[in-house]
Amino acid sequence: MSDATREIEALIEMMAKLPGLGPRSARRAVLHLIKKRSRVLMPLAEAMRVVGETARECLNCGNIGTSDICDICQSEKRRNGEICVVEDVADLWAMERGGAFKGRYHVLGGTLSALDAVGPEDLRIPKLVDRVTAEEVTEVILALNATVDGQTTAHYIADLLESRVRVTSLAQGVPIGGELDYLDDGTISAALRARKSV
Amino acid sequence: MSDATREIEALIEMMAKLPGLGPRSARRAVLHLIKKRSRVLMPLAEAMRVVGETARECLNCGNIGTSDICDICQSEKRRNGEICVVEDVADLWAMERGGAFKGRYHVLGGTLSALDAVGPEDLRIPKLVDRVTAEEVTEVILALNATVDGQTTAHYIADLLESRVRVTSLAQGVPIGGELDYLDDGTISAALRARKSV
Repeated sequence: MSDATREIEALIEMMAKLPGLGPRSARRAVLHLIKKRSRVLMPLAEAMRVVGETARECLNCGNIGTSDICDICQSEKRRNGEICVVEDVADLWAMERGGAFKGRYHVLGGTLSALDAVGPEDLRIPKLVDRVTAEEVTEVILALNATVDGQTTAHYIADLLESRVRVTSLAQGVPIGGELDYLDDGTISAALRARKSV
Repeated sequence: MSDATREIEALIEMMAKLPGLGPRSARRAVLHLIKKRSRVLMPLAEAMRVVGETARECLNCGNIGTSDICDICQSEKRRNGEICVVEDVADLWAMERGGAFKGRYHVLGGTLSALDAVGPEDLRIPKLVDRVTAEEVTEVILALNATVDGQTTAHYIADLLESRVRVTSLAQGVPIGGELDYLDDGTISAALRARKSV
């Protein structure tokens, strides 16, 4: 296809499979890397090797870190007794960027899905039940995506836990900076139902 | 910003600087890499290391390869006497994907630019002049971008070489599959001036 040698071609093919990159952007990225070989390419290769050798899932919550128990689970600054349940590590990072939550996390690793035959044992749900008992948890906050699978999973977990602990979920409504005209009907209805006095 | 450990954070920052990726897509890409550590991350790190150690510019034409003289310059299947001048290796790859050109290439490494103080010596223009003499070239095909800098560079090279060799440039006109209504006026005018009998 292109005239790069086999090694460069192989690198382009691997890069093109990353989410967010396609063949064209992979070629551009690889050319950029080759042009800045010592300042960009070699440090990047080394950073990947280091992460590849050290990254692992936290045995407690499923977060990604470099030790068996992640920094958040180990931290003494985080509040005990509150667990925020997210689908994925990316969602945990998004919550942390928000900066409002000071408790601990639990990463499910996906959602329940009848179609894809994903059951509770395939996710980190049994471990969540264990933690609720073991860590004297007072509140489980479900921060799952507002998709069908995400909400199905939220309902399942709520059913499972609400006899033992307070279960809450993120509020639904108009996003900050959002314009009503561009919002879908479901969000507007939800925001209306959850209206507050000012 | 996020709660990944320092090594993962460093990798995300490096990835975010690649062309075509930003902070969000870099985070997604790194999570993807960590999840498929043995099948994707480690081979990618290794491919980068190999390319970093072997890739170099062809001393003759400026193409990127793994030897001092690139495969195209070495190939006996390519036609001698025709040199296609491109700005960048990405343009060379684009020409090769087209598959219509069977001669050799010359990669300038940029365009002349008064603003950025890029003169002929900063590009591979003196080397092009040498090659025209040394390789008994009969035609120089200018395949430079249709930008102001690209066309300035094309005119400069044409002035320099047209006393010694035939200098041509790519045709301008309606792209295959292009709709007139969406084309800029300059392209339509150029296509009209270059009209052919059917």
